Amino acid sequence: MSDDPDTDFTFARQGILFIISAPSGAGKTTLASRLFQAIPDLRPSISYTTRAPRVGEVDGRDYHFVSEDHFVRMRDAEAFAEWAYVHDFYYGTPRAPVDEAIAEGRDLLLDIDVQGAKQLKGIYPEAVSLFVLPPSWQALEQRLRGRGTDSEAVITRRLHRAREEAHAFPMYDYWIVNDDIDRAVSLLHAILIAERARVARLRTRSIA
Amino acid sequence: MSDDPDTDFTFARQGILFIISAPSGAGKTTLASRLFQAIPDLRPSISYTTRAPRVGEVDGRDYHFVSEDHFVRMRDAEAFAEWAYVHDFYYGTPRAPVDEAIAEGRDLLLDIDVQGAKQLKGIYPEAVSLFVLPPSWQALEQRLRGRGTDSEAVITRRLHRAREEAHAFPMYDYWIVNDDIDRAVSLLHAILIAERARVARLRTRSIA
Repeated sequence: MSDDPDTDFTFARQGILFIISAPSGAGKTTLASRLFQAIPDLRPSISYTTRAPRVGEVDGRDYHFVSEDHFVRMRDAEAFAEWAYVHDFYYGTPRAPVDEAIAEGRDLLLDIDVQGAKQLKGIYPEAVSLFVLPPSWQALEQRLRGRGTDSEAVITRRLHRAREEAHAFPMYDYWIVNDDIDRAVSLLHAILIAERARVARLRTRSIA
Repeated sequence: MSDDPDTDFTFARQGILFIISAPSGAGKTTLASRLFQAIPDLRPSISYTTRAPRVGEVDGRDYHFVSEDHFVRMRDAEAFAEWAYVHDFYYGTPRAPVDEAIAEGRDLLLDIDVQGAKQLKGIYPEAVSLFVLPPSWQALEQRLRGRGTDSEAVITRRLHRAREEAHAFPMYDYWIVNDDIDRAVSLLHAILIAERARVARLRTRSIA
């Protein structure tokens, strides 16, 4: 392209895998859904699971619901970028849709816990990881209690787990304090827009 | 801070040195001044020079205007992060204000050419570098001619230099195509906001 004066600088780039984690109660689910509204060409990564669909869940939208046999065959064929066995069910992030999105310049957002995020960063070191925090531990506790749906034991366990997960915080690329939902959404938005402008993700290495 | 439930997550962070470069005619000066308006706590880095002030230029705002003797003593004391001798005058970026800003969590924007950017990245590897491009080489040529103030020889030299500088483009962190000034300003703004949320710049390494 070097000798063509008409060359424009709208370069092709790789797609980006965004990984988002947060302690329970930090407001991650609301943030993610606001972000999908704000950035229509950001898509969720759909996980596979062996648990049954809950009321309102749609196969292929919320999860790919598969049998244990199906899941184990995919796992043994290394079709998952990460997987976990939690409370008798398998959950896994399929590798192929992520690889395709990156190759085709499409961006994915993957909502995952700290353990899953670590595995994904091992396989996709260029993924961008985001850690959402409550304004304080006290605020987190208030939010968990404010739901009014959980027992004291469940709240205590969630708070304990939140502090455990927070140890992994330094391995993330960005931190977002969810003190105000609009501010947090606009920060997440800024991060996504900025990451799309990274020279390292361009396919073109010379423009002169 | 681990045992205090009142701990909030408004962490202290390092200041950021933003470096912005662009071929002549790409609109960098307008972009930078719009960015200073949009982000009042972003400050320019003030260079030293041995050339005389032009009409309207203010010492300490546009440049620190100093004697050649003064400049050479500073240079020999390694007081400059980068310096250059151009058309009989010295120009240099003082190290101390940059170090202080980084230590105190303040952000600086430094408008500099490709050679200077390379030197600065050597000294400040955590600096964030931004490369502004015109929409195309053709658009750049039209803008340079549109000014109506420059001779054909000057325009040809600037275009040649722009293409030379563009070879350095892959060493920058971010690229901004200035096809529309509002869009370019909002992209720059997003990059600055995002970089402020990088975990790597936090002073706190543990929050649990």
